[in-house]
Amino acid sequence: MSKYDTICAVSTASGTGAIAVIRLSGTDSHDIARYIFRKNGNTLNVNEIEPYKVYYGEIFDPVPDDKPMIDDALVTFFKAPHSYTGEDSVEISCHGSEFVQQKILELLCVRGCRLAEPGEFSKRAYINGKLDLAQAEAVADLIAAQNEAEHRIAVNQLKGGFSNELRDLRSKLVDLTSLLELELDFSEEDVEFADRTKLNDLLDTALKHIGKLTDSFRMGNAIKHGIPVAIVGETNTGKSTLLNAILGEDRAIVSDIEGTTRDTIEETFTIEGMMYRFIDTAGIRETTETIEKIGIERTFKKISEADIVIGLLDGTKSVKGIIKAWKDIVNRVNLLKQNLIIMVNKSDIMDATKMFTLNDDYLDYMKSTYEKNIENHGGYMTDEYCYSITGMDLYDIHGLLTFSYMSAKNPEDIENLKSSIRHRYTDMPDIDGNTTLVSNIRHFEALTHAKESLEQVKNGLENKLSADLLAEDLRQALYHIGSITGEVTNGEVLNNIFSRFCIGK
Amino acid sequence: MSKYDTICAVSTASGTGAIAVIRLSGTDSHDIARYIFRKNGNTLNVNEIEPYKVYYGEIFDPVPDDKPMIDDALVTFFKAPHSYTGEDSVEISCHGSEFVQQKILELLCVRGCRLAEPGEFSKRAYINGKLDLAQAEAVADLIAAQNEAEHRIAVNQLKGGFSNELRDLRSKLVDLTSLLELELDFSEEDVEFADRTKLNDLLDTALKHIGKLTDSFRMGNAIKHGIPVAIVGETNTGKSTLLNAILGEDRAIVSDIEGTTRDTIEETFTIEGMMYRFIDTAGIRETTETIEKIGIERTFKKISEADIVIGLLDGTKSVKGIIKAWKDIVNRVNLLKQNLIIMVNKSDIMDATKMFTLNDDYLDYMKSTYEKNIENHGGYMTDEYCYSITGMDLYDIHGLLTFSYMSAKNPEDIENLKSSIRHRYTDMPDIDGNTTLVSNIRHFEALTHAKESLEQVKNGLENKLSADLLAEDLRQALYHIGSITGEVTNGEVLNNIFSRFCIGK
Repeated sequence: MSKYDTICAVSTASGTGAIAVIRLSGTDSHDIARYIFRKNGNTLNVNEIEPYKVYYGEIFDPVPDDKPMIDDALVTFFKAPHSYTGEDSVEISCHGSEFVQQKILELLCVRGCRLAEPGEFSKRAYINGKLDLAQAEAVADLIAAQNEAEHRIAVNQLKGGFSNELRDLRSKLVDLTSLLELELDFSEEDVEFADRTKLNDLLDTALKHIGKLTDSFRMGNAIKHGIPVAIVGETNTGKSTLLNAILGEDRAIVSDIEGTTRDTIEETFTIEGMMYRFIDTAGIRETTETIEKIGIERTFKKISEADIVIGLLDGTKSVKGIIKAWKDIVNRVNLLKQNLIIMVNKSDIMDATKMFTLNDDYLDYMKSTYEKNIENHGGYMTDEYCYSITGMDLYDIHGLLTFSYMSAKNPEDIENLKSSIRHRYTDMPDIDGNTTLVSNIRHFEALTHAKESLEQVKNGLENKLSADLLAEDLRQALYHIGSITGEVTNGEVLNNIFSRFCIGK
Repeated sequence: MSKYDTICAVSTASGTGAIAVIRLSGTDSHDIARYIFRKNGNTLNVNEIEPYKVYYGEIFDPVPDDKPMIDDALVTFFKAPHSYTGEDSVEISCHGSEFVQQKILELLCVRGCRLAEPGEFSKRAYINGKLDLAQAEAVADLIAAQNEAEHRIAVNQLKGGFSNELRDLRSKLVDLTSLLELELDFSEEDVEFADRTKLNDLLDTALKHIGKLTDSFRMGNAIKHGIPVAIVGETNTGKSTLLNAILGEDRAIVSDIEGTTRDTIEETFTIEGMMYRFIDTAGIRETTETIEKIGIERTFKKISEADIVIGLLDGTKSVKGIIKAWKDIVNRVNLLKQNLIIMVNKSDIMDATKMFTLNDDYLDYMKSTYEKNIENHGGYMTDEYCYSITGMDLYDIHGLLTFSYMSAKNPEDIENLKSSIRHRYTDMPDIDGNTTLVSNIRHFEALTHAKESLEQVKNGLENKLSADLLAEDLRQALYHIGSITGEVTNGEVLNNIFSRFCIGK
């Protein structure tokens, strides 16, 4: 299988459409396409082909005597290196009949094309230097993007934003490695070309940079697969009604996504271009049943996976009951890692006087939490911790201590809650197409390995290790960073990456 | 809704693919596309646009401050009248993400595009004289084509073969009508410009031509929906095994087609590019049960709808039993209209000596049929009738009087049977792309009406009706013929036709 053999595939979505596009790429693509195409009855002369010009004519079967027309079609020739793959290539835009698509592929294969493997066009683009590996992966992400945020991450990556950052990082580390390696050449003379203090500063900068990127993975991953949201509460607080109300508004863009790494199908919904993934939780209630306890423990485990927890209380219960349920939820949530939104449901049928009592109790609880926290943190209540609990910063704490009340049956309340969900995700940057978020687990792993290697270099510096050992770890870090953009790679990794692409891309 | 407002739609199959094509057509299509497209960061100048050239650049959202890139894309401008619709139009080839497709449609609509209705591009092509109505319908047929034969009918119709035939026919009739109408102007003077004998000859020619076309509808329709094939026989003769064996070989192209006019899902299979549709039949057996009798009557009704009947006999039964079953089948089949293939199944486990006895009986039966037929047809046995019964012409009748034996478990026997099915359809022309077959019921009905009108003209001529009455009927015939290609038509018919197209075509 030569690198330049000619491949073909239907590149548009499978099935019947008004039109379909068949793509060819490889050394013989122009000749093969010319052979089955006639314009005003004539084959195009190889010398008269203008690349990037759309030719209208007929695809025909050149073998039978009557040379029957298969379809009328638009054919465009692309000239290497100015094509997606960087090779000579052709696009045939034909009628979207599956029969026609198959027939044209047959004609192409008879003339020497080979059916492309999944992602083979993009793989060639990578091999021919048109895209680096991270950009090629962005193409697949772009195609799979289901919402604004995912789309923007992919576009940024495709434009090379991520790759450029990595290239900068890598080039600095390369310089450093060169200096260290120079020392190796003069190792007999015990010189130090690389300034150890500068080296250390550079390592800190690099580690900080990589740390920012690995930290962004939680967000990038959440955007790709949906930010996990759990609605928790006792049985019959209206969890299902609430979920349906949230989904109902977005019914058109609700989807049952089947993840590749998840074994369950989950419901997702999109708010202002951001995808959320609902984590199914069973109702929490007191029980002595061992088996039911196990079920409830599972629910708690699931809750711990959520980034946002909506704690739902039943406003028609007694004040004591509501407070108890509320504390149960608060105690189960990791307020340092998770966003908690407490809502008292059924406001339409609850006793309004209850609200005052609840707010007083809430105030008391917050005060005690505040005191406890001052103890725990040596007299210092962090903004972050305070925010996690209250959703407002330290100064507002005594001003606005209220529960939020809602009725899952009131569309306005649902809109407010959605807005609250969208804005609670405080560490979410405005995805403006220029922010680099790592959303690919392969990249995350490579960055994590690079970080480990750099940390070893840092340790080595502290322990005054020799230049050759430092250089070895630096090279490891470089290897891992380079593997992201494909500056270093191996066949297996490549095959693994491109096999996940769709055919025709 | 102006005829020239600008419409847009995704023209490729719905869903996610490597690439998707979005089409715009209408007066403002170039400007709207230019507004959301930048090449090397710049908007294309309206004067510098080269039509039919593929531009590579970015689709972007021009509204936000950062003007984010939505996708990189290929954009081609088509200049009226040299486009599919005959209007200025644009094709945007973008990544096949559903999100990207929707986003680009949104951008286009914000700038003044309207989402196209089903078939609206083709409707404009018709309105602008790029395609006649029969050709536009051929586009839809071509897209829906599932096999070679359907595809060839559609291609022939798209190329204008059918339209040209109709135009010839119509122009002759128009000349005639003109002459008759001239007589009307001179009606006081009792002249006859139109030679009545010539008129009669012309009518005969036209009627013969139209008759040929309407006759082809049975074939055209069979090709479009599959040639109906029934496998009949007593219970346990191996009908299901046989069907599975036939389908199994073609598993890849077996489809459960759901017809628009049928309420059942039927299995189809393709042999040498021709689609066959299996008619489900219950086993036939003697019964006194009233209800079961009704079921068996229904089976017989269904059998009568088949073009090809495969009569399956159980070779392991007694000779008497086989002969009886066989006569039952023969008596139920209309040998003048249907093709009967008699197969004795289970040849692998049947007693070989039985074959001789069967053949002798067959010979006797054929002889008596022959005698009876001579009586029925006044001493004349037609080739057609003989062929229907025997599958061979008159001269072979005494030479090759054999049953065909097979085992549904023997792949070679199945291949032979398939070949026999394919070649039994004796009135099937070689679909070579130049044969006109009427496959559209609208065309069939229009032709039938035209035929009726022309027959009235012929009657009128015989009865020496006046020129004005003759002309009136001729105009009716012209109207019906013209309605096929859309030379005369009305909005309702047009809407009806194009609403069946897919969106984006």
